[in-house]
Amino acid sequence: MTQQERAVRTRQAILTAAAEVFDELGYEAATISEVLKRAGLTKGALYFHFASKEELAQGVLLEQVRALPETPEHELVLQQSLDESLLLAYLLRRDTGNPIVRGAVRLTVDQGSPKDGLDRRTPMGAWEEHIVTVLGKARERGELLPNIDLAAVGKLFVGGFTGVQVLSNIMTGRDDLPERVCDLYRYILPAISVPGVLVQMDFDPRRGEQALRKALRLQEEKALEAAGTA
Amino acid sequence: MTQQERAVRTRQAILTAAAEVFDELGYEAATISEVLKRAGLTKGALYFHFASKEELAQGVLLEQVRALPETPEHELVLQQSLDESLLLAYLLRRDTGNPIVRGAVRLTVDQGSPKDGLDRRTPMGAWEEHIVTVLGKARERGELLPNIDLAAVGKLFVGGFTGVQVLSNIMTGRDDLPERVCDLYRYILPAISVPGVLVQMDFDPRRGEQALRKALRLQEEKALEAAGTA
Repeated sequence: MTQQERAVRTRQAILTAAAEVFDELGYEAATISEVLKRAGLTKGALYFHFASKEELAQGVLLEQVRALPETPEHELVLQQSLDESLLLAYLLRRDTGNPIVRGAVRLTVDQGSPKDGLDRRTPMGAWEEHIVTVLGKARERGELLPNIDLAAVGKLFVGGFTGVQVLSNIMTGRDDLPERVCDLYRYILPAISVPGVLVQMDFDPRRGEQALRKALRLQEEKALEAAGTA
Repeated sequence: MTQQERAVRTRQAILTAAAEVFDELGYEAATISEVLKRAGLTKGALYFHFASKEELAQGVLLEQVRALPETPEHELVLQQSLDESLLLAYLLRRDTGNPIVRGAVRLTVDQGSPKDGLDRRTPMGAWEEHIVTVLGKARERGELLPNIDLAAVGKLFVGGFTGVQVLSNIMTGRDDLPERVCDLYRYILPAISVPGVLVQMDFDPRRGEQALRKALRLQEEKALEAAGTA
């Protein structure tokens, strides 16, 4: 392993440990010494990569996009969007989840303090932009009713996902999150999609796990391909 | 003013100051000394009413229900439900809002730590129960399509409101919350209500302010009535 590879791995280990601590304690109560204990590293190793708790938190917030694998294409864009949301729900679970995704979601949703300097607008704005792009693709494919306000519906999906996640976490420790996410789509799609799409949708909450498996296989194939052409 | 009246006022002043501090700093960063400074009280006066920061937070959480005035009846139950949500959105604003409502919402939504001992399930459960009762009334009046799963739709409304509130707070400091709340109803009602209701709904975001004014007048009338019969 080269020195550079080692540095990348250390940075990743620090971010994962930090994300776990932020997920469990929140930004305010988290401490760098707890992150060090969790990652089994010295102060020097951490400060080489991150100068402060704030930098650690920003690192976790930025990493969440990379932590989400690309969902496989589906002929129905709205089905692919539901599958992606179910995949995110799956990654938010405590047992099967991804600590970076969990930590980043908590850092975004917890209200924090203006003084903490954390940028919550960028991740939320990125989610909005993403869903509006997906809805635009659905419109091109003829899946949407005419005159749908994509920006407004995008905010509703991002806000809706955020909130059913908070509610499910409080009431069931996220056990019922896949069902809540399916209901979010089930009860909004009749107002925005053409009837032909609605009857083809599969609202099975277990699709998140399947989507993750397919997404990881896709990732592997792409990595092999890249290695072959290198 | 009797001693008892003074005690009630002091308790209310403490809860309001505490709610402001919880709203601004969150549970973890809030301190009793900040609450004392805000309320202009001595330690002794506060500890007479609340033994700890946790008791203060539970007090704010419980007070939120009383802080919400009763919305005036409307012939359409679903319109009354939207008006109530818009009223809540109005009370969450920094300028026109109610500190108890703001503080309680933040205490509920911030993820906290299992160690903080705050009960977030009771307020969320109360919101769910409330909306399911309202939806039941809408069903009795013939406003809902047949076979709607009231529990699932109730969770969607509570989760949806929670999330559009978080999103609106991050992106606009809650300036666009009334529109986001209208959209929550606008895009869910087609899946649950009969068409005749849909065309009668008024989705004007300014209805929250009107609802508050009517609700306060209603409160006054009831108080006068009670005084008259006493």
